[in-house]
Amino acid sequence: MKLIEGGVTAATGFKANGLSSGIKRSGKLDLALIACDQPAVCAGVFTKNSIKAAPVVVSQQKLHRHQAQAILVNSGNANCFTGNFGLLYAQKSTELIAGLLNISADHVLVASTGIIGKPLPYKKIEKAASRLVQGLSKRGGALAAQAILTTDKKVKEIALQTKIGGRTVTIGACAKGSGMIQPNMATMLAFITTDAMIQPQALDLALHRAVEKTFNCISVDGCMSTNDMVSVLANGFVGHTPIAEPSKDYEIFCAALDFICLDLAHKIVKDAEGATKFIEITIEGAKDDEQAKAVGLAIANSNLVKCAAFGSDPNWGRVAAAVGSLGLHVSEKSLKIAFSSFKKPHIDIKVDLNLGRHRAVIYTADLSTEYVKINGRYN
Amino acid sequence: MKLIEGGVTAATGFKANGLSSGIKRSGKLDLALIACDQPAVCAGVFTKNSIKAAPVVVSQQKLHRHQAQAILVNSGNANCFTGNFGLLYAQKSTELIAGLLNISADHVLVASTGIIGKPLPYKKIEKAASRLVQGLSKRGGALAAQAILTTDKKVKEIALQTKIGGRTVTIGACAKGSGMIQPNMATMLAFITTDAMIQPQALDLALHRAVEKTFNCISVDGCMSTNDMVSVLANGFVGHTPIAEPSKDYEIFCAALDFICLDLAHKIVKDAEGATKFIEITIEGAKDDEQAKAVGLAIANSNLVKCAAFGSDPNWGRVAAAVGSLGLHVSEKSLKIAFSSFKKPHIDIKVDLNLGRHRAVIYTADLSTEYVKINGRYN
Repeated sequence: MKLIEGGVTAATGFKANGLSSGIKRSGKLDLALIACDQPAVCAGVFTKNSIKAAPVVVSQQKLHRHQAQAILVNSGNANCFTGNFGLLYAQKSTELIAGLLNISADHVLVASTGIIGKPLPYKKIEKAASRLVQGLSKRGGALAAQAILTTDKKVKEIALQTKIGGRTVTIGACAKGSGMIQPNMATMLAFITTDAMIQPQALDLALHRAVEKTFNCISVDGCMSTNDMVSVLANGFVGHTPIAEPSKDYEIFCAALDFICLDLAHKIVKDAEGATKFIEITIEGAKDDEQAKAVGLAIANSNLVKCAAFGSDPNWGRVAAAVGSLGLHVSEKSLKIAFSSFKKPHIDIKVDLNLGRHRAVIYTADLSTEYVKINGRYN
Repeated sequence: MKLIEGGVTAATGFKANGLSSGIKRSGKLDLALIACDQPAVCAGVFTKNSIKAAPVVVSQQKLHRHQAQAILVNSGNANCFTGNFGLLYAQKSTELIAGLLNISADHVLVASTGIIGKPLPYKKIEKAASRLVQGLSKRGGALAAQAILTTDKKVKEIALQTKIGGRTVTIGACAKGSGMIQPNMATMLAFITTDAMIQPQALDLALHRAVEKTFNCISVDGCMSTNDMVSVLANGFVGHTPIAEPSKDYEIFCAALDFICLDLAHKIVKDAEGATKFIEITIEGAKDDEQAKAVGLAIANSNLVKCAAFGSDPNWGRVAAAVGSLGLHVSEKSLKIAFSSFKKPHIDIKVDLNLGRHRAVIYTADLSTEYVKINGRYN
């Protein structure tokens, strides 16, 4: 496995573009397109929030076919809680792009991120669409990575190569995070592309497993978004024997996918709204994986723990209180808590529950005055 | 029912005192004693956190007898996660006070609030105890109310009178709140006294019901404390027929107790750490009371909703996202959300789930930059 330059267009056969369509009043890039030269095998994971944004509803339907060729993404407007018009515009966007690319609208996914409850300015998308398609290029991955951001300060990209069946396979990706970040999932979008050839079911399983261990182990503010989506497109350009599960090739592919997802998850936490500290919470001695994760998240979502991290005040009593709040059979005597220095930008919190042999690692950021300021005047 | 002056010593037969014993480095009052001229019927509700502070463990044991005559409270140190010495000191404190009052140590409760994990400076309590007891007076209720505070800005007291069995019954109380406030319960202490005569089981039931509707319906930061305690002492000085359940007298008593608890709960939220807004969240159309409460708390504990309140930004999409995060069968079409102005100090958020006929009202405060500052440098 080798890291390489590039992001979502690093793999053979993918192009992208990003531009400013005017959805964001700031004039920043707000419309991205990722496209593939031929239909790719596709898998996706979506928010578990009951209130799902229109693009989530539309993309989830299309994904039943396990095939996609393009993803249109806008930032600045979530197209959520926007009624029938929201659904209509989401669907129309896919038809618009399909027409320009001369492909089936069934193969175009759509994602949105931004403010909830405001009508999607579809006219702006309509007006910018042909320019967006014409500008598709191998170099456009960086523009797309830029155009999907909201309050993110940094672009989040990664690409790597690995060997499968004797051939070099490339996987690239871009993501956005920032606020409303909590497992199941964060307000986050991640788009992964690869030229590997893989069976739809194997890709689906690989993605779900990767998400569970990475994006579902981060929490910025415990708030679950309505718009989350992680998708992976595998166009099979490398032409090796299709990866099936279980197999050694599948394990190699999963390791690479896990690496990509963990890297993006870390980047999301590090660039969380107002974050000044990266907090890694390791829970050991849990009776099962679920318990380990629940304890880690209880600590990660404790405002008091997060404020303590912000203030460089290693207050382990707050960690103990967060663990105890779940009502587990832990006691003062059995519970072990250890810290690294709270003054450094990377804080390690280790908790041993002494209830079993399972573990989990959860990642979060501190809660800063800046987070409150950002979210007190959002849009 | 008539509000009167005074607090925890308003009812006949109760005295109190508060002083500075040096536990708080600031020199502020940090030791309080509430005492009754004879053993009173007593009921208590304690934190459900698995990590319980030593005074909670000790007081809970003593309360099995449903009798108490004095409560010693210190602020500035939680005496939590302090091992066997913590338990020993909590027990010794009750013996110390019992000796000075010439009563049984079984009838002395103890409560603590403050930082977790530091040894209780028992010597300071030992040194101040006789002065504390000597200073007990009817007027000392205000000093006690002051001495139980931590980061609270305001004293929280209330007293009222009502008629039971043709006689005037007085109920008074004081409380502390501020941070780590969440149901089951808040980092809160509340001490209620009354000269009513009531059967132990009736008092216990009345208190549990009152707490469920009031203190368990507030949330400041979703953090559950290790030290919470609400207790009520009923000394029976009024001498009417003992209140039993069910009866009209019981209903009258419950109404008065509910009023006291709701008033203190509101005062706690209004004086929450860094709070600039009081938020009242009414959930209607829930399938049961539990669901109504869970939805209200999901909104109350959403940092994004709280930041929006702080920034006077009526972002209802965040309310919708918080409701949806619970995975209920709600949809964009069925869910109704209404707001009052976010610019005023009192914000009303009304949500109709359209799933049934149950309702709940939850109270919370906004999340301000000041909250983060306070909790970034606590002690």
